Amino acid sequence: MTQTLPAAPEPHPFDVATALEPIADDAWRGRTSDAYWNMVGPFGGVVAACLMRAAHDHPLRRGEPVALTVNFCAALAKGEFAVVARPARTNRSTQHWTMEMSQGDGGAVATATALFGARPATFAHRPVAPPPAPPFEETPRFPVSGLGWTDRYDFRFVEGAPDWNGDASVPAPARSVLWVGNRPIRPLDFVGLAALCDIFFGRIVHVRRRMLPFGTVSMTAFFHASAEDLAAQGDRPVLGRADARVFERGFHDQSAEIWSADGRLLATSHQAVYYRDPDGDR
Amino acid sequence: MTQTLPAAPEPHPFDVATALEPIADDAWRGRTSDAYWNMVGPFGGVVAACLMRAAHDHPLRRGEPVALTVNFCAALAKGEFAVVARPARTNRSTQHWTMEMSQGDGGAVATATALFGARPATFAHRPVAPPPAPPFEETPRFPVSGLGWTDRYDFRFVEGAPDWNGDASVPAPARSVLWVGNRPIRPLDFVGLAALCDIFFGRIVHVRRRMLPFGTVSMTAFFHASAEDLAAQGDRPVLGRADARVFERGFHDQSAEIWSADGRLLATSHQAVYYRDPDGDR
Repeated sequence: MTQTLPAAPEPHPFDVATALEPIADDAWRGRTSDAYWNMVGPFGGVVAACLMRAAHDHPLRRGEPVALTVNFCAALAKGEFAVVARPARTNRSTQHWTMEMSQGDGGAVATATALFGARPATFAHRPVAPPPAPPFEETPRFPVSGLGWTDRYDFRFVEGAPDWNGDASVPAPARSVLWVGNRPIRPLDFVGLAALCDIFFGRIVHVRRRMLPFGTVSMTAFFHASAEDLAAQGDRPVLGRADARVFERGFHDQSAEIWSADGRLLATSHQAVYYRDPDGDR
Repeated sequence: MTQTLPAAPEPHPFDVATALEPIADDAWRGRTSDAYWNMVGPFGGVVAACLMRAAHDHPLRRGEPVALTVNFCAALAKGEFAVVARPARTNRSTQHWTMEMSQGDGGAVATATALFGARPATFAHRPVAPPPAPPFEETPRFPVSGLGWTDRYDFRFVEGAPDWNGDASVPAPARSVLWVGNRPIRPLDFVGLAALCDIFFGRIVHVRRRMLPFGTVSMTAFFHASAEDLAAQGDRPVLGRADARVFERGFHDQSAEIWSADGRLLATSHQAVYYRDPDGDR
């Protein structure tokens, strides 16, 4: 008679892509994942998630996430990378971190800072409401190329889907509202939320109604969710809203909100996005 | 017969407060200035300006300002401080910097990152308009305490001035629109613009209609202005708009715009702001 042990559950591809192995004090090794590959490097959200994980999972970390800034310095090559995360200052109720991701001897591929803090129960006020949206199940799925990372998310535009066939001579609205789910589904945690903060396509391709060279160069995320909010959200899709104020000399801004399925604001994200538009040169 | 030489022009107090003296490769010494003192440390905008200056005025700096993130780790004591600024990555058209301000052997008082880039003439689009406002000269000056830094600026609220006598049981709007001028006047440059990005009072005191303990803990500024835009602005006041999306467990967000006197968006600023509200504990 032989005993059959239950198979260990397959880890989610996101957890594979953001796994970090300790290599020294404050230093970890990761490996890029084809499942989240973009055209010339990994999906930036996974880079942000790795930097968040290094600080968040560090034994010295105190408090809950408040802010994360990631500067995308260079495209990662496929293979191993190193992450260093160190507390820069620990106060009574806040803790500041600095992080850096590097590869080979080519220097920094991303720099980052993070802030964690005590989140006491006190005055709360939520003047902004979530955008109106039909349920996820009733919103058609946006067709994606099947390219690595875009296939790891389920994009369902309520408003402002890319319009590849529209009149490019007139700027389209910069604003989008969309549901985003993980494929396969995955319970939301702060590392996954950091990735979702970079989920939006650069506003330039919406406004110009065509694919153009673009990339986030700097992203700042503010976290408003508690661990209980994330547990209540579970593995359901989030509702995102993104917009831009200005496209100027090769960079545009982007501000975005990530709402829970129950209409709670989980995070806000602000980006500087690089773009080049050969037809727009003047 | 004696010759009288013309007196050297007195430096502007802002330039005194942000003066940095080189002390080593990539390292400078500054000194806090009573003219920009706040209650328990310098006005955060001057801290941001010193960090911006260290990178912006560095001989290795290439390109124009795109993004600046400053994390305020601890209040500075009066006296000397050190700033270190190093390029983390220099690409063909972008350059990433990391900066840190420290004092004595107490560790970091502020951490920062900055991004500079080539700003080519290409497709431009400005979907957001400046808020309507009467001229600066026709807007009454907001009375300030005469406390250091608040006396260095001329605040003229068009909308959403602090209402210290209102009904605190109902949250007031988080939004403000105001003119801000330097006292004395000073031509705008990128270092001065970095300071203006932190000029807004924490939204919590507007919403709660009372003074409460608060402080910016992380600020990210995106720069949309060219050197020509700043020259055209000269020493005129800027028009600011600030708002918040959420006040949650001791931190609120803030997004703000800085408009030129001619209605051009010079910079946007996004903050995480710490607050404590003894009457709001639950």
